[in-house]
Amino acid sequence: MSSITFIGTGNMARTIGERAVAGGNTVEVMGRDQSKADDLAEALGGGATAGTWGAVPAGDIVITALLYASVVPVVVEYGDALAGKVIVDISNPFNATFDGLAHDEETSIAQEVAEVAPAGASVVKAFNTVFRNVLEKGRPDVFFAGDDAQAKAAVATFVESLGLRPLDVGGLKMAHWLEGVGVVTVGLAGNGVGHWDFALGVDEFTG
Amino acid sequence: MSSITFIGTGNMARTIGERAVAGGNTVEVMGRDQSKADDLAEALGGGATAGTWGAVPAGDIVITALLYASVVPVVVEYGDALAGKVIVDISNPFNATFDGLAHDEETSIAQEVAEVAPAGASVVKAFNTVFRNVLEKGRPDVFFAGDDAQAKAAVATFVESLGLRPLDVGGLKMAHWLEGVGVVTVGLAGNGVGHWDFALGVDEFTG
Repeated sequence: MSSITFIGTGNMARTIGERAVAGGNTVEVMGRDQSKADDLAEALGGGATAGTWGAVPAGDIVITALLYASVVPVVVEYGDALAGKVIVDISNPFNATFDGLAHDEETSIAQEVAEVAPAGASVVKAFNTVFRNVLEKGRPDVFFAGDDAQAKAAVATFVESLGLRPLDVGGLKMAHWLEGVGVVTVGLAGNGVGHWDFALGVDEFTG
Repeated sequence: MSSITFIGTGNMARTIGERAVAGGNTVEVMGRDQSKADDLAEALGGGATAGTWGAVPAGDIVITALLYASVVPVVVEYGDALAGKVIVDISNPFNATFDGLAHDEETSIAQEVAEVAPAGASVVKAFNTVFRNVLEKGRPDVFFAGDDAQAKAAVATFVESLGLRPLDVGGLKMAHWLEGVGVVTVGLAGNGVGHWDFALGVDEFTG
């Protein structure tokens, strides 16, 4: 089992947090609004605790469950408090029309986090290709990318504890293309699929 | 049923062509090397014919089954011979290390084709996310993107005739992100999946 800290108290922290508690993980929640962190920890149950915003997280894996524009600033704000942690960026930096990314360059929030993360921290991109409602009701594949094999193994173990299949797509530069998969997923919801109750996953044809 | 012309006589033309003939479509093949076009038409059977390189294709749908670097030059070479056609770009412009795209900008081969295509031609990106071996043995989802609804409907009908599920991801600018899905697919083959007998598809969780 893993020890997880969520930075952020919104819907994604709640949804992944519920699965994390159900999977027997140790869960901590941090919010800039302490009362929201307290409330979410209580709602999650299973021994979930509320930490103090900006302090060293209790979890070895720190999930930045924030809107994309806040992720880099919050990692900067935490600074050395994240030293040695596995930082998991789950964000989708969509543009205003949701048909592309907000960055002009071939980068990703995860790569930008890696540039500002403290010594010994490793960054993994994960979960961004999965709509929250699907995480609530289904067992979608979870794609992830990162440069540190040990960090990726830790994230894979955590994903498995949620009853989901972790699928490694490669190094951290692939985070850009995972963000692109997020764009394609929204495009499918608005076009060929027509609803939000789906996820892209790996279909095997080994027969 | 659809009338299809393949420009190109390689493995993708052969694999899609076999399914196209099996699906009752009218198939024409064009190759710069006429003997290769003749041989492929004969191998496909089912009334498949060999056209003349550079002439007006018989098919309403023209699939450029070429290596990515040849697609735009060949469309330019065909010029007005492609007027009014639905041009389907299936290419993957991978970089040298297969972990990104060959373009520096946020574009795609399909978008570049649209810039040089003659009047009345419409461009659709499709099939690029599916490895050839999977098309030979399985029934993967086929994602497509384009700006012209009528052209996309024609491609969807063709894809269905192959026994495959067509999934519209949106406008032609999404071709860039479909090329990115190609990058992610190669990343999965080399990492989390570890083989090539799979495709990304839509898994629904509507229960």
